[in-house]
Order: sequence, then structure tokens, then C-alpha cells
Amino acid sequence: MASKVTVDPGKLTQFSAKVLQKVGVPEEDAERTARMLVAADLRGIDSHGVSHLGPLYIKRIKEGFINPKPQIRMVSHARATAVVDGDRGLGFVVGHYAMTEALMRAGQTGAGFVSVRNSTHCGAASTYAMMALPKNMIGIAMTTGGRGMVAPGSVGRGAGINVISVAVPTQGNAPFVLDMATTVVAGSKFEIALRSGQTTIPKGWAVDKAGKPLTDPKKYAEEGALLPLGGLPETGAFKGFGLSVMVDILCSILAGSVSISELLTQPNTALRANHFFGALKIDGFMPADDFARAMAGMVKVYHNLPRAPGVERIYLAGEVEHEIENQRRHGIPLDPQVIASLQELAAELGVEYDL
Amino acid sequence: MASKVTVDPGKLTQFSAKVLQKVGVPEEDAERTARMLVAADLRGIDSHGVSHLGPLYIKRIKEGFINPKPQIRMVSHARATAVVDGDRGLGFVVGHYAMTEALMRAGQTGAGFVSVRNSTHCGAASTYAMMALPKNMIGIAMTTGGRGMVAPGSVGRGAGINVISVAVPTQGNAPFVLDMATTVVAGSKFEIALRSGQTTIPKGWAVDKAGKPLTDPKKYAEEGALLPLGGLPETGAFKGFGLSVMVDILCSILAGSVSISELLTQPNTALRANHFFGALKIDGFMPADDFARAMAGMVKVYHNLPRAPGVERIYLAGEVEHEIENQRRHGIPLDPQVIASLQELAAELGVEYDL
Repeated sequence: MASKVTVDPGKLTQFSAKVLQKVGVPEEDAERTARMLVAADLRGIDSHGVSHLGPLYIKRIKEGFINPKPQIRMVSHARATAVVDGDRGLGFVVGHYAMTEALMRAGQTGAGFVSVRNSTHCGAASTYAMMALPKNMIGIAMTTGGRGMVAPGSVGRGAGINVISVAVPTQGNAPFVLDMATTVVAGSKFEIALRSGQTTIPKGWAVDKAGKPLTDPKKYAEEGALLPLGGLPETGAFKGFGLSVMVDILCSILAGSVSISELLTQPNTALRANHFFGALKIDGFMPADDFARAMAGMVKVYHNLPRAPGVERIYLAGEVEHEIENQRRHGIPLDPQVIASLQELAAELGVEYDL
Repeated sequence: MASKVTVDPGKLTQFSAKVLQKVGVPEEDAERTARMLVAADLRGIDSHGVSHLGPLYIKRIKEGFINPKPQIRMVSHARATAVVDGDRGLGFVVGHYAMTEALMRAGQTGAGFVSVRNSTHCGAASTYAMMALPKNMIGIAMTTGGRGMVAPGSVGRGAGINVISVAVPTQGNAPFVLDMATTVVAGSKFEIALRSGQTTIPKGWAVDKAGKPLTDPKKYAEEGALLPLGGLPETGAFKGFGLSVMVDILCSILAGSVSISELLTQPNTALRANHFFGALKIDGFMPADDFARAMAGMVKVYHNLPRAPGVERIYLAGEVEHEIENQRRHGIPLDPQVIASLQELAAELGVEYDL
């Protein structure tokens, strides 16, 4: 296996933006999308960064599944809430628009919630939830994912690998950032397993079309379905499935779309997604400074729990990603396959490869 | 094992209200609490119904841990949000007050969120989330639970068995009602296992003080800790733990309290709890009738997924409870131990036992 190649985050952003412009994405949208893709790589969410640029976004724009110049529309019937139609735009562009709207409404009333239909794959949900942090708000982002979860009692892929993210300002270094698929693991863990040459994955992640445990990452692509968080019914599968359906309701039904389980069986729906964004203004509850200090106190309480033998520290959600971000600020290590796909894009679209 | 005794829901409510009044709870609060307790039994949530009346609520009121006549106070700094101090009142009384406030605010702005400190055990979280249903709103209720979850990387009880509930109006019979502890199972499953004479519980629910699997329900009380939803780190334990901390933030930190992991190690905190209630007005997104119809369509999609051999139907969150409620409307079967505890209460407090 070839070793990783380290690239400069700024150059990677510029390169990605140029590539997106070559397929018709307006400059501002291309730059925003590139920044959000690289932000995922910076935080170590390699499954949702530039590795997707060619195979997901550029491919689907060229095929006509993603609209590079969407007419995003918004309807609102209450001060704190709105519905957005993304016109099949890039999920990054639509998501940024909708989360900005949620933050604006939370600034006015204390809470803002926006449900989004007709969007597409928006990358890492935490990118949007974290937009709330500099505004001293709690950010919430949910999105439908692929139709890859097996529902308890069913066989095969049926429910959405739907995602929940919540970001909370914290005094000190790392904000609390939860970003989780409602399955045991995200589907992209299989892409990464394959890319890194792994031949087995842990039992308990996925099942085959008969419902038997599946541990070969190659087989997953053909006939695998991901188990809901909780795994089997006796260990809480109904909870993971319940969370997946909850996300589907808030993203799809509340936005005037249909269940992701129905949408993704219709023709021409590659990468289609619905989202739900929310923000709570901390000052609407208590002074934001006092809150951030109290958060730091809470973090300390969890950090100080007794540690199991061999465990160096206890991690809260977002802390690992924050550490990685500090390391990667001056260079992001990319898999050679990802580098190759970027070089291909450069050649194909006539963009200089300068990473 | 003696067989169950079926009691009339109306009489059970009246009896419970009289018992609560005998220890100083005002009539209206006692009736509200009794209705909410019996509502849990009606929906089959036997772990959170009248079985708790004597051993939890009456006992703790008499010991002075629960204040039967709280002065509930509210502070609000934004139209959509507020903080409530429950003055150590019964969680049912405090919770009903705070959820009513969230619903009122959602009626005005489209969204309402209320964080609650200084409250106590409030029973089943879904009781509050479901208050949103007749108002055509989506209801959200979270509460801290006992300090009984083992955090990933730690040993012993450390994090909260915190709970999330979401209720969504649905055309037809059963509303979508998710009500889940963030552990693999709720702690009360062990009480029920003991009450029903079970000698083993499934591996994957709990661990002993060394972190080894625990399958003896008697041992759980002495030295057990519940695994977070997801079980072990490789199957998503960080997600269950992350959800638990998220609930702690919204209930405790946002309300001006401290982490439940800290609070419950302080003296005199038996049954103390913090809550978080929210409501989203559906009309703020789309016409509520269209939404309820679309929900029914979504339910059908999930019901129609292919079924595994031997499975009769696929259940969405809340459907089992709804079926039980239809059966129990005319009689609630109670364990003989629960009947005995009610008879004891009657004798002790001078209330006629007429169930």
C-alpha cells in the first residue's frame, strides 16, 4: 500500500473550487463548497471530504443529477421556522443557505428551524451545526443519507443512513460536536476499509441480504445493509431505527418531500437528500459566557471519570476531531487513491494540478 | 409467580391522586400527576407508571427530597425560549408547567424550547412530548436519568441514563412516538426482570465494576453499569454516550444547573433531574393536514418493506404502545408486587383501597 501524500489545505481548497467552477458552479458557491469539503478533511472526517469531489459531486453534476445553478426558494409561515426548496443544488450550497436562515431566525426569536427538500448530498452534517458556534448558538443539523439501513424485522436495505449533528460552544479548546449516522457505522467506513486494503470489518456493522452477519467489505457493496445503531433488537436496534425515522420526518416530511425510503427508489434520484437545520440562541436561556464556562466545567467532570486500565483519556464528542484539526492545519494527508482521483479531475477538466 | 391483577384506569387515577394529596400535594397537581402515571401504564410503559408511586414519589416526598408545594419560577430572555426552576417539585408538575410554556411559545413564533433545572424524576418522557399532538405540533422531551451509564473508556457508573422523546402527529391511528434511554436498555428493565423472576438478562445490556459483561439482574443493583446505546466502542458506544451528554447539556447546562454526572454525586439529590422540552408548530412549515397525510404515507412505506421470515409486521416507534393502549383502556394488568405496594400505601396513608 502506497503511503499518504500531505497537501496544503489552502491550495486544496483553491483547487477544489476551480474544479467545481469548470462544471458550471458559480464562483462563490464553488468556493463555499470547497471550503466545506476541506473542513471535513481538516477534522479527520476523510469519508466526507475531497475524496468525494470527483466520484460524487463532479460526476453527478455532469450527469445532470445535481443542478450547478439552483434557484433556491424559501417559504415561511412563522417567525422561527421555514421550508427551503433546494432545486437539486449542491447540498453544500443549499445547506449553507438554509442554516444561515435558521441562525438569522434564532437571532430574532431565540430559536430557528428550517426543513429542506430537493437538495443533494451535503457532506459532513457537523459543518452546518458548527456554523452556530461563532454566534454563541447551539447548532443542529440533520440529513437523510443513502437508503442503506436494514429496519428491524425487515431484510435488505430499506431505511435511511440518516445523520444527526449537534454543536455546542464550550470555553477552552474543543467545542462539543456530535456527528453521527443512525446506523452502527456510516456507509463510508466501507469505502475507507476497501481503500486501505482491509479484508474484514467487525461483526455487528452490517448484514447480508438474508440478514446474516457480513464481514467482507467487498460483499457490502453488492448485498450488504447496515444495522441500525443498537445492532440487534435485544440491544436497542429499535432506537437506531427510531432515530433514523425521526430524521426522515424532520428532513423529508416536514419539508413537503416524501420519505427518503420512498424517494430513493424513484428514478433519477442519485445523491438526492433532504435536510433539517436548527439553532438555539444561548442568550435566550442564559448569558452565553456563563454557559461556555459551565460547559467547560461539565467537560472536566466527564474527563475525570475513573479510567479503564490502559485508557489514557476519556473523549467527548468532537474532541478527537479537534485534535486532528490542530495537527492538520498545515497539511492534510490524503490516500494515494484520492490524490489520483484529483489528478484525473485536473487533467479531464483542464485545471492545473498544483497540490 | 402470582398472576396479574387487572384494575380500572379511572379508579387507579383517583386512588393515586388521593394518595398524593395525603402527603401534601395540592389537589390539581395530584390529579395531574396521577393521570400522567396511569398514562404510562396505559401505554405499557410499566417501568414508569404506578409501580413507582410508593417506592419513588411518596417515599421521597416524605423524606423531604421532593417538594410537594414547589414555587416554580420562569425566566425568559427571548420569545421562543425560557428557563424554569422547578424548586424540587414533582417532575410531573414541573414538567407539565414547562412543556405547556414551550407549546405556548411555539404557538406564537413557530418554535418553543424550555430548559428546566431543580426538578425531579418526571416519569415517561413521551407523556410530555405527546402533549404537542392535539395542538398539531411536534413535541420534544428530554430528561436526565440516573447516573448509571458507563462512559466509553471509563469503568463504573458515570454518565446519565438520559432520555430522548419525540412525538409527531400522524393521520390514522398511531402517532410516531420515540421514547428512548440513551443506554442499550433503561435501568427499569432490571426492576422488571427481578419482579418477574428472571435470573439472567441478555449480554450486552450491562457490565460489572471491572467492565465485564453482567447477566445477573441481582448483581446489577450492586455493581452494574449500563452500556451506552451501541454497546462497545467498535459498534457505536460513542454515539450513545454522545447522545447522553447532548441531553445533559440541553437539560442541565442550558438551564443553569450542573452536569447530572456531577449533580448526582452531591448529598441529598435523590431523584433530582433536569429536563428540556420543545415544540415545533407544523403550520409554521406546511399545512398540518397535509403533513399528517404525508406522515401516513411515510408509515405505509416503512410497513411495506420486505419482512424477514417469521415477522408479521414492521413496527415504527410508538405503534406497540398505541396497540397496548387500545387494549388497556378498560383495564390495566398490574404485577402482584405493585398491587401489594398500593395496598400498603392505602393502609399507611388512610386511603380507601377500592381497585
